[in-house]
Amino acid sequence: MLVVKKFGGTSVANKERIYNVAQRCIKEYEKGNDVVVVLSAMGKQTDVLLDMAKDINDRPSKRELDMLLTTGEQTSVALMAMAMQKLGVPAISLNAFQVAMHTTADAGNARLRRIDTERILHEIQQRKIVVITGFQGISKYEDYTTLGRGGSDTTAVALAAALHADKCEIYTDVDGVYTADPRIVKDAKKLDEITYDEMLELASLGAGVLHNRSVEMAKKYGVTLEVRSSLNTNEGTIVKEEVKMEKMLVSGVACDKNVVRIAVVGLEDRPGVAFKLFRHLANHNVNVDMILQSIGRDNTKDISFTVTEDMAQTAVDTVERHRSGSLKCSDVKVNYDLAKVSIVGAGMQSNPGVAARMFEALYDANVNIHQISTSEIRVTVLIRKDDAERAMNAVHKEFDF
Amino acid sequence: MLVVKKFGGTSVANKERIYNVAQRCIKEYEKGNDVVVVLSAMGKQTDVLLDMAKDINDRPSKRELDMLLTTGEQTSVALMAMAMQKLGVPAISLNAFQVAMHTTADAGNARLRRIDTERILHEIQQRKIVVITGFQGISKYEDYTTLGRGGSDTTAVALAAALHADKCEIYTDVDGVYTADPRIVKDAKKLDEITYDEMLELASLGAGVLHNRSVEMAKKYGVTLEVRSSLNTNEGTIVKEEVKMEKMLVSGVACDKNVVRIAVVGLEDRPGVAFKLFRHLANHNVNVDMILQSIGRDNTKDISFTVTEDMAQTAVDTVERHRSGSLKCSDVKVNYDLAKVSIVGAGMQSNPGVAARMFEALYDANVNIHQISTSEIRVTVLIRKDDAERAMNAVHKEFDF
Repeated sequence: MLVVKKFGGTSVANKERIYNVAQRCIKEYEKGNDVVVVLSAMGKQTDVLLDMAKDINDRPSKRELDMLLTTGEQTSVALMAMAMQKLGVPAISLNAFQVAMHTTADAGNARLRRIDTERILHEIQQRKIVVITGFQGISKYEDYTTLGRGGSDTTAVALAAALHADKCEIYTDVDGVYTADPRIVKDAKKLDEITYDEMLELASLGAGVLHNRSVEMAKKYGVTLEVRSSLNTNEGTIVKEEVKMEKMLVSGVACDKNVVRIAVVGLEDRPGVAFKLFRHLANHNVNVDMILQSIGRDNTKDISFTVTEDMAQTAVDTVERHRSGSLKCSDVKVNYDLAKVSIVGAGMQSNPGVAARMFEALYDANVNIHQISTSEIRVTVLIRKDDAERAMNAVHKEFDF
Repeated sequence: MLVVKKFGGTSVANKERIYNVAQRCIKEYEKGNDVVVVLSAMGKQTDVLLDMAKDINDRPSKRELDMLLTTGEQTSVALMAMAMQKLGVPAISLNAFQVAMHTTADAGNARLRRIDTERILHEIQQRKIVVITGFQGISKYEDYTTLGRGGSDTTAVALAAALHADKCEIYTDVDGVYTADPRIVKDAKKLDEITYDEMLELASLGAGVLHNRSVEMAKKYGVTLEVRSSLNTNEGTIVKEEVKMEKMLVSGVACDKNVVRIAVVGLEDRPGVAFKLFRHLANHNVNVDMILQSIGRDNTKDISFTVTEDMAQTAVDTVERHRSGSLKCSDVKVNYDLAKVSIVGAGMQSNPGVAARMFEALYDANVNIHQISTSEIRVTVLIRKDDAERAMNAVHKEFDF
């Protein structure tokens, strides 16, 4: 059996934890399994490197930033291989060049295109544990790239797909996927299983356990994921296409505070205005989430949309840059005080009235809803950040997990 | 004109120094010259990484150690490129994979085999300053390697040769090559010029300014070196094949305290014993320096030799391993209290009596000589470490620089 195991930065933050991970991997190896390990940079090392860069140049080029950041995972894989060797097991570390891990050329936010498996398979055949840098890749120009937030999860899933692994385990600092964040909702319960689609909605909504790109990739290639804790040996949560048990009406409540709403007020009310706005934003790689268009006064309209905090400044700059040209408007308002709360459940599709129950629970908890968006298996409301915890508890209670 | 500039770890130890180096390189670039910069890891970063490795595994594999160490130069080149960009000049950093810098597969002590110039020339044609990681390479297996001590100098010289550079400047924290270490000998003077051969003897004897492998390579490919300070704009020392001025009798006095003498006592006095001893040592990559063979008692002989400190344990272990087999001997003695003091000068070849003047000066200074070795342009004595400074001053005074 070939198992891919991915450990995040906190799991390899110091010597003791590195040895803890090494021992876990060796236990798998000693069952006779082939083991591929994917690691993030140690602890907060990526942030340390970002600060170093910013200290030298407040706007470092993304190409050079990736050149710097990729040292983080290279450090952790080298130390992990040394730890495993110290424990008497053959191990080898590989970086994005050595694998090779081909990506698009978008420094800072690249997408995996192809993984060469030759070197990895060669090392596995030598019965070595192969320790691979997550998060990083190389472009066709042979420049380093990074995969953006949660990139190491994506690396692990892509490797599992490319190597036709039997299992892909994502180790985090929580036991698995919960019906809500246990730090906020006391009665939150761990889920044994969840579908890709539900996980996708939860991941992109800030449940914080798995990054959505990794879940998308797992779904695309049919890689069964297991989310579990690196701190204990509890069973985790399995993420796969179909779950055995009856589909739950709602499988989870998620909250995302990393949201900024930008309102473009008083746009000319003529065709193509919305198109131009979102085209400009897309050209600057701004991912837009919830969009609301409303009629303003005097033949104008208002368009508001939400973005993540790191994109907010770029989004505002983009709009301002075109205010005197193709995007005439009277005002641009930015609101940092909002949060998204969502319910997710594959069972929702065949059960009308789920959204209404959520809204009623929020009304009873005196939470004001600013904006609503839905998908087939999700209902999201935009509310005040200050209301977020109260809202989550109220909604979680309503659906009685 | 194409100029290769190499800066050591102290020259890029912090933000201020990184900017100092960036500005120096930009000054060259703004003259219209093409600039290739070779950097070491920042400050003591290589030692920090070594300590990290030792903390995880007291005997880390050299392959994994190189995987770890190469993050050091990658960090400094990325930050340097960011600094240059901040100053408005196009710059790009390249590591050993991106160049590519092909070496032998001897992790920790690899030798450069071939440097691809395509990527570098491409970037130069775009009028970018190209910032390259020193010290590191890649093996034919696509593993990282490092070039051993002083490796960044070797990288710079090899790049200058491969790119047919017009100049190769090695920046250090001293103004150039001195007749003796100015910290030890007050009257030491800076040399304007020195030959490759003299520099080679000085480098390998611990003058500490240039590593001997880089000088060997410069001699082989006819690369004219300039050793100069990164802290001021003083003229440095030119290292080349022939110096214009009349050859000095002695160009420098060097001291090397990184020396351990190992005496193998009571070896059987039959043919092939010395051969076997040094073959075993060579098999373990132990570089032996001064060798002395003397007749012992009862049909035995003693062989003593010197090695650097980092090789001493391996050398002793090697001898001990074969004591019961092919290297029967009565005792192995190790002496850490010795130092080498040498005089070097191309003029020596045609002037007999130079060695005698050195020995007399040492006698007058009451320094006991343990062992002597000579080459055409060098005389070296092995003395007590405690006598080293007195010896250097006495010898320097004798030759009246």
